[in-house]
Amino acid sequence: MNQFIKDYLVVAQNASGRNMNVPLYRFIGSQPGPKVYIQSSIHGAEVQGNVVIYHLVQWFKTLPIRGEIILVPNCNPVGTNIKAGEYTLGRFDPVNGTNWNRGYFFDAQFVHQFAQQLNEGDSIAQIKQQFRQQIKQQIQQKLEQEWGLGLAQRLNLKLQQLAFDADYVIDLHNGPVSTRHVYVPEYARASALKFNIPHVILIPNVFSGALDEATFCPWWTLSELLSARRQEPVDFAVEAFTLEMGSQEVINFSEGEYDAKSILTYLSAKGCLLQETIEPQAMRRIAVTLNNYKIYYTQQGGIVEYLAKPGEYIKKGELLARILNVDKLEDDRATTNILAPCDLVAILHFPSASVLSGTQLYKCFTNFFELEALDVS
Amino acid sequence: MNQFIKDYLVVAQNASGRNMNVPLYRFIGSQPGPKVYIQSSIHGAEVQGNVVIYHLVQWFKTLPIRGEIILVPNCNPVGTNIKAGEYTLGRFDPVNGTNWNRGYFFDAQFVHQFAQQLNEGDSIAQIKQQFRQQIKQQIQQKLEQEWGLGLAQRLNLKLQQLAFDADYVIDLHNGPVSTRHVYVPEYARASALKFNIPHVILIPNVFSGALDEATFCPWWTLSELLSARRQEPVDFAVEAFTLEMGSQEVINFSEGEYDAKSILTYLSAKGCLLQETIEPQAMRRIAVTLNNYKIYYTQQGGIVEYLAKPGEYIKKGELLARILNVDKLEDDRATTNILAPCDLVAILHFPSASVLSGTQLYKCFTNFFELEALDVS
Amino acid sequence: MNQFIKDYLVVAQNASGRNMNVPLYRFIGSQPGPKVYIQSSIHGAEVQGNVVIYHLVQWFKTLPIRGEIILVPNCNPVGTNIKAGEYTLGRFDPVNGTNWNRGYFFDAQFVHQFAQQLNEGDSIAQIKQQFRQQIKQQIQQKLEQEWGLGLAQRLNLKLQQLAFDADYVIDLHNGPVSTRHVYVPEYARASALKFNIPHVILIPNVFSGALDEATFCPWWTLSELLSARRQEPVDFAVEAFTLEMGSQEVINFSEGEYDAKSILTYLSAKGCLLQETIEPQAMRRIAVTLNNYKIYYTQQGGIVEYLAKPGEYIKKGELLARILNVDKLEDDRATTNILAPCDLVAILHFPSASVLSGTQLYKCFTNFFELEALDVS
Amino acid sequence: MNQFIKDYLVVAQNASGRNMNVPLYRFIGSQPGPKVYIQSSIHGAEVQGNVVIYHLVQWFKTLPIRGEIILVPNCNPVGTNIKAGEYTLGRFDPVNGTNWNRGYFFDAQFVHQFAQQLNEGDSIAQIKQQFRQQIKQQIQQKLEQEWGLGLAQRLNLKLQQLAFDADYVIDLHNGPVSTRHVYVPEYARASALKFNIPHVILIPNVFSGALDEATFCPWWTLSELLSARRQEPVDFAVEAFTLEMGSQEVINFSEGEYDAKSILTYLSAKGCLLQETIEPQAMRRIAVTLNNYKIYYTQQGGIVEYLAKPGEYIKKGELLARILNVDKLEDDRATTNILAPCDLVAILHFPSASVLSGTQLYKCFTNFFELEALDVS
Repeated sequence: MNQFIKDYLVVAQNASGRNMNVPLYRFIGSQPGPKVYIQSSIHGAEVQGNVVIYHLVQWFKTLPIRGEIILVPNCNPVGTNIKAGEYTLGRFDPVNGTNWNRGYFFDAQFVHQFAQQLNEGDSIAQIKQQFRQQIKQQIQQKLEQEWGLGLAQRLNLKLQQLAFDADYVIDLHNGPVSTRHVYVPEYARASALKFNIPHVILIPNVFSGALDEATFCPWWTLSELLSARRQEPVDFAVEAFTLEMGSQEVINFSEGEYDAKSILTYLSAKGCLLQETIEPQAMRRIAVTLNNYKIYYTQQGGIVEYLAKPGEYIKKGELLARILNVDKLEDDRATTNILAPCDLVAILHFPSASVLSGTQLYKCFTNFFELEALDVS
Repeated sequence: MNQFIKDYLVVAQNASGRNMNVPLYRFIGSQPGPKVYIQSSIHGAEVQGNVVIYHLVQWFKTLPIRGEIILVPNCNPVGTNIKAGEYTLGRFDPVNGTNWNRGYFFDAQFVHQFAQQLNEGDSIAQIKQQFRQQIKQQIQQKLEQEWGLGLAQRLNLKLQQLAFDADYVIDLHNGPVSTRHVYVPEYARASALKFNIPHVILIPNVFSGALDEATFCPWWTLSELLSARRQEPVDFAVEAFTLEMGSQEVINFSEGEYDAKSILTYLSAKGCLLQETIEPQAMRRIAVTLNNYKIYYTQQGGIVEYLAKPGEYIKKGELLARILNVDKLEDDRATTNILAPCDLVAILHFPSASVLSGTQLYKCFTNFFELEALDVS
Repeated sequence: MNQFIKDYLVVAQNASGRNMNVPLYRFIGSQPGPKVYIQSSIHGAEVQGNVVIYHLVQWFKTLPIRGEIILVPNCNPVGTNIKAGEYTLGRFDPVNGTNWNRGYFFDAQFVHQFAQQLNEGDSIAQIKQQFRQQIKQQIQQKLEQEWGLGLAQRLNLKLQQLAFDADYVIDLHNGPVSTRHVYVPEYARASALKFNIPHVILIPNVFSGALDEATFCPWWTLSELLSARRQEPVDFAVEAFTLEMGSQEVINFSEGEYDAKSILTYLSAKGCLLQETIEPQAMRRIAVTLNNYKIYYTQQGGIVEYLAKPGEYIKKGELLARILNVDKLEDDRATTNILAPCDLVAILHFPSASVLSGTQLYKCFTNFFELEALDVS
Repeated sequence: MNQFIKDYLVVAQNASGRNMNVPLYRFIGSQPGPKVYIQSSIHGAEVQGNVVIYHLVQWFKTLPIRGEIILVPNCNPVGTNIKAGEYTLGRFDPVNGTNWNRGYFFDAQFVHQFAQQLNEGDSIAQIKQQFRQQIKQQIQQKLEQEWGLGLAQRLNLKLQQLAFDADYVIDLHNGPVSTRHVYVPEYARASALKFNIPHVILIPNVFSGALDEATFCPWWTLSELLSARRQEPVDFAVEAFTLEMGSQEVINFSEGEYDAKSILTYLSAKGCLLQETIEPQAMRRIAVTLNNYKIYYTQQGGIVEYLAKPGEYIKKGELLARILNVDKLEDDRATTNILAPCDLVAILHFPSASVLSGTQLYKCFTNFFELEALDVS
């Protein structure tokens, strides 16, 4: 049976002088195997991932695993508890606007230096161990610097120290009002078929601060450098994903069970389960490259009915939304139709009907395609 | 045809030194008749009423009315535009927490004084005119006092000066996540049958600051005093309602058309339409007295799945909600079931899954009954 | 020497499923004597009281007391930790706008019932004990009611259960930008001379939800009823005060020492110190009745320079403030002078230069007078 | 005399469907000369710049200028009006945390392309005109893109279209609790002596989204490219500064007059005044390079007394601040001293006493030096 360890990680201290920590649920299999790190709710209002982890915890009580799985629900004790009106102000630090998911560490230059000092004969396992150790040292130095560190960055680095040991990292998020979708690094597109998630965003080796990037950018960069030098593909078998499990501000236990099962199928494919093999669902998976995942900003303020539902396919020129201008109810400026600029799939929309101009009304797949086994082999 | 006048009412000034006003849409019929005042969105996130008024404006362009109808959409230019995260912080002044719907004027003592100085022979029409004039004078004095007035109260009084002229006042609101319901003063319960709204709260002659109360409490009080003195029922034919048009933060044009039609049936019953007669729908209407409209506060913090849907009938002991405690996922404290303390109809629930202890989880009808033509005659 | 007990009181639970508690510092003297209850920061941004309590804790380590003193710094763990931008949103629950200092319990009717069932021969001590027990039972029933209780009210009642045992209750607050002042119930005006606080507001036996009122209103009411019945003054020797220790959002250790000493002089006068006698400072104390403590609301929006400093005496017609209208810089509407409507002492002003119309610009003493030993005898 | 034109620039639309604009005060001299652009309050709580512009407007009514001066007070109508509690939430868009001063446009690659296509014989004046025209075209294209633009970026670009025509651009800000300081591009350090501002931060040719950078980075880059090619210094005589006029959330008319005069001395030095010559004050000016302008983050949460005052020189190991931990009042963890990590000048500190760990407690000059005429020649 799996060994279970409950632990806590201190990540901050509040104005009352109390430590703020996050719970760690750690399962260790009886046989060696990959390390898995799964966290949820780094954005405080995106809570469905906690239900997903709830189901995983229940299952791992009896389902034997290989290796080790760390589950970190509710990983942002600050963001989870900031209410602004009835909702949760969970995307950014209310003091300074810093997005809670942009302060992880990546230093491309360091990866280059690291690659240069490697010996020809170093095995993949040796390299992985060294690389992990050195990256974690770098993070530790940042955490200890004399002039201190911002709240969001410290939280991120504390979590990254745990996550960087893992081979498979999954960061559970939600969109505002959203259908399920997943961010997948280009090199791991085959793995997109292992999740039961119908919408896939393929992202390049570019770092903008998030946990998935902070996990795969170093390995991806190192892999490219070594592959070039050794003239053969070097694969570290490290993958990282951001899964968007529907809409923020709601939880649903039965949908959470579906999502948890979808993660199990991925872990099963990666050899994390000792006995069982769970196959992904046969389903249509629509993919898009990151540059074709587009934001529609409204150019007007007003009150919006969102007509295109998340997951819906909309043809160029069809209605996305309708904006009411309460100041012009007497004439034909009362309502404005927002039309799709091109064929698209609406993935998510803004969660409030009241918008100023310049609001992200929709995020959409454009120039999308079906992801098939063939594409990814 | 109706005469149409568009106007603006200045209600505040912002930090940029700009006046903030609300639009007034005024329709005057070719024949005399009652005065109607309808406003929406005094709570900034409760926006569906604007769509209702949109439809009413379209109809009154061609539908001949008697008397006068004033429509004031988006009547709180401050509350509508305060975003806190992606949502609208619309229920209270963000500076001091003052509920935008608690600063209207009512002075019971003044009504008593007014009643005393009336002459036996004064007609209802004379009394109504005098009473309106004197109440509006009182409001004007408050607006002009040397030491000034708070923002929310000034906004309320400016609107009340318009509303107090009306015979029928309708204040359009939304609940958080809510089914449609209406607040009706006990004396006007017959009118509850004129709206197409399935849930009715019957309220007593008690003032707690809202527009509907500020409208009916003076007339109700005066009516009781005069009825007692004259030994016969004195009816001023003034009514006021708060209509809750579903959930906040969303609009829906087709539901708005339904709601607007429901208001038309009421106005039709009151003789505000010149030609047409529109009958209310035959439907089951569940009613409750205000003291039986109960709030369920959670005693735990955590993440909530709301299982009882707005409008749903729940028996004592059945599940209302389920709370996840992310700190205790490993044992049976992981989830807690919230059970109905008695038979109830869930009317609305909190709009966020993340709650601290002491959050209004649900508002419920208890000891409810069916409202029938017979009850109200 | 005093006995010291550190304890914690659970008052809420957050969305992470964690209990939120407040620290209790309890000192018990070697000899019997009065009970004292002092709390600070029920409004989260009003933090100077914590420094005052810090100094009191240091002193009571070595300064022998009679009776018992409970110190509850930072008594609102929710309000203390809600940042909105760089400041603390500490006056009200961010979910619903409820002021954290308006949910304490007082039921005048219950006091009347209690008075009626007393026996002629009951001693003051017996009455005090019974009254405390019954009021605390009432509070306990409220805390246990099946449908639950709002967050702010539960916090208040939990604190009140401790405070109602005390003979002397002091609630430490701050104004926005403020000079030191104290709220004193009329019957205890002699005690105003025991604090080193230059501005005194004398308040009547009216309950509006705050801790000081919730403490003295029951005793005051009971005292009046019994005095009338027994035809002689009945004094329960219970007093309660709200002390406003300067401005919110700042602390100052040396001013805190001054304030702590001021509280010691009061406690000394009440017999709480075993050996030492500390005399209040000779100083001018200006007093006002509550109805003469007036709020000046600006009727314009704009950007304000506060010219009258807290504590300053301003003659009728002199400048209080000057408002800049950035929209009219080119003509004489650029600035507006706000003049004192009458002779006044400016006690506090709004803490931000940017104001909408209807903002509480100043709170002022009008018709004030000097409080002298003679007045209060 | 100068010609005066008052104008308005629409920059957004609110949820009420109303256009939001900023006032433009434009003075045109009777003789040609440089163009000057001065704006204030892009961060809504930083309001002292509005007073500075108020004084400038008064003076330019009678003080003859050369060229043209555009003054844009209160240039962010959204940020100015968002209250969160009593303060102004003015640094970032409350919807998404976007800093209002990070969305200006700069494209280094475009500058390189532009430089390459220039002819050897093009005069400075010709180049300036072409460059301005093309950069403004780029901005225009961004403003018109089919999928729209975020609120903060649109606001920034609308302002930049005006500012990019200017030779001298001044962006007026405030720190939280702050002494006066100015950001100066390295190449314009001589100009630092023209302002009466005692603290100077010298910044490199690096773009991070602010208006000053968006103004000087293109010209600086172009100047370097052309200087290299032409083998002689090419100077476009364009300068841009961010002036920090003390603390946010307060205004002071007489300090504003001082600041306005300081700007006049700069403009005088640049030939913008027709008759008068105003000399800068003889004063000590302390300078630092940007990498030596350091942030001290607290590693603890608690309540802070800020002991080092803005502008104060603190030796290594001396006290900066003292943190109170209300949870440990009984022992020596009650207070923690924060010591200066090295010799420094405290420039600004956090404006609230209540801090979580990871808060920017202080920003400090380290390795600073005196700026003298000699250094900058």
